[in-house]
Amino acid sequence: MRAVTLSGSGGPEVLEWGEVPDPVLRPGEVLVDVVATAVNRADLLQRAGAYPPPPGASEVLGLECSGVVSEVGEGVTGWSVGDEVCALLSGGGYAERVAVPAGQLLPRPAGVELATAAALPEVVCTVWSNVFMLAGLRRGDVFLVHGGSSGIGTMAIQLAARAGARVFTTAGTRAKLDVCRELGAEVGVNYRDEDFVERVLEETDGAGVDVVLDNMGAKYLARNVDVLATGGRLVCIGMQGGTRAELDLGKLMRKRASVHATTLRARPATGPGSKAEIVAAVRHDVWPDVERGVVRPIVDRRLPMSRAAEAHRVVDASEHVGKVLLLAQG
Amino acid sequence: MRAVTLSGSGGPEVLEWGEVPDPVLRPGEVLVDVVATAVNRADLLQRAGAYPPPPGASEVLGLECSGVVSEVGEGVTGWSVGDEVCALLSGGGYAERVAVPAGQLLPRPAGVELATAAALPEVVCTVWSNVFMLAGLRRGDVFLVHGGSSGIGTMAIQLAARAGARVFTTAGTRAKLDVCRELGAEVGVNYRDEDFVERVLEETDGAGVDVVLDNMGAKYLARNVDVLATGGRLVCIGMQGGTRAELDLGKLMRKRASVHATTLRARPATGPGSKAEIVAAVRHDVWPDVERGVVRPIVDRRLPMSRAAEAHRVVDASEHVGKVLLLAQG
Repeated sequence: MRAVTLSGSGGPEVLEWGEVPDPVLRPGEVLVDVVATAVNRADLLQRAGAYPPPPGASEVLGLECSGVVSEVGEGVTGWSVGDEVCALLSGGGYAERVAVPAGQLLPRPAGVELATAAALPEVVCTVWSNVFMLAGLRRGDVFLVHGGSSGIGTMAIQLAARAGARVFTTAGTRAKLDVCRELGAEVGVNYRDEDFVERVLEETDGAGVDVVLDNMGAKYLARNVDVLATGGRLVCIGMQGGTRAELDLGKLMRKRASVHATTLRARPATGPGSKAEIVAAVRHDVWPDVERGVVRPIVDRRLPMSRAAEAHRVVDASEHVGKVLLLAQG
Repeated sequence: MRAVTLSGSGGPEVLEWGEVPDPVLRPGEVLVDVVATAVNRADLLQRAGAYPPPPGASEVLGLECSGVVSEVGEGVTGWSVGDEVCALLSGGGYAERVAVPAGQLLPRPAGVELATAAALPEVVCTVWSNVFMLAGLRRGDVFLVHGGSSGIGTMAIQLAARAGARVFTTAGTRAKLDVCRELGAEVGVNYRDEDFVERVLEETDGAGVDVVLDNMGAKYLARNVDVLATGGRLVCIGMQGGTRAELDLGKLMRKRASVHATTLRARPATGPGSKAEIVAAVRHDVWPDVERGVVRPIVDRRLPMSRAAEAHRVVDASEHVGKVLLLAQG
């Protein structure tokens, strides 16, 4: 089969579209003929050599895909050849075929085109597991997501608004903030012009926010703690602003607040806290509203996998809104 | 009535035993004739001027007491004059009488002498709310509590062992570690001789601990993160080693771990996350085992309230094991 491989570690130029061996189907897995995959920031880190795949995962990039089931492995029930699916992967999505643990498959939602469905697994599973399963966002809570126009951001805004939370977000341009507001954000803060702590405290009469979903890590740690309400939860899922920063535990204590940091990729396939557990929750709790069109995949552009380098340049430069898809058949 | 008052902010010498006005009984409260109170580290901080009482709380020290109900306020049901009780307070325990919101009362456990019951409310409510309600310690989990011979420590060891967790603790002398082991700790680490991270990782085959209950704050932050297992929860309830320290969010992320900091005193009397909610959970989930003698109050010594300064010196110097009680009738 063909796949995107790495000629080394470095910039987008190390991405090459070429022949690789087909994946081996193991018991409990399903083989998927890939229609599309999507670019995640973790792919950029992996390309640069900063985020090696976890043990046992494919060396090929790609943490999600959509496609058609072409073979069902030993012991798998509930899936048949010909099923249209999308899937959360530990790697291997930038390819024509991928072997997926059955617990990480989701049916293509009715009403969502098959290629577009590749935009869903990572963002829905990430937002659902962190904002709802971990941080317990509820109706009436105040929610802040940084980078509201990213793939994660556009999904977080929709899911939090659907849950009845007040949604605040940050982004770097007026156009991006307009999209965030269309998706359900009440207040958008342009981080280039304005301090988000000041603005959010003003808008909440000084109370702050119940849950922050953060992608900046160290750079925002102190301000994220400042913006938390009593009992607030800060969840860091990205470290775009570095990893080490001073934490004021006294401030955290006065707020009875918490700091969480998580990653989806390193979770086990099955068992407590696994990808399968999250995927099952997403199918039960989110998929019906995707099928109703209440929650939509937001796609910035579609490129063939052979032009993966161009896709990475777009994401590297944060030019996109929502997800950048890569199609297997260019 | 008589109470311990502060002649100023400073050392134990500012504590004075003298006449003050009786407390005013408000609707929803119960008046308790105090038999005993107990010394908490927060009292030492308040005495030194570093921990002012929350708005509306008594200026008199004392976060817990035991005694006899002498008057029942408007709207209170379930309590009668003559009931033997202990109570979680926002202040006012170092006195002959105290007014208590009804939701913060607990019946004296059968089999526990009334004065001794003053050793229970703060430690049981603190440990139960943090280790179980917040951090969700479960059978088979690994638990580490720092300062195992303190009031909190002696209760945390017992409650975690009762829950079927493996219990690790730190303390500063061999005698203190012996008490910890008698109470149910599997491994005691003398922090003067040994690095707790190394020892705990060795004893858990490198896996680390699921829950840490910490009283040191900044000084232990990095090491507490180092000792956490995948999915681990660090709960800071004391800042004896300062409040500000560097947090490695990347490490926290690789472990999918969290840092919590909480305080009991500032919680509201009623509603979600309140003292009443915690007291109700303690009465339901812990009190039966106190009555069976499975969980015991550990009392270091008993002094009359008129000798509060001496009691503070003992706690200041960490000479004690368990709780230091102050009796109203010396």
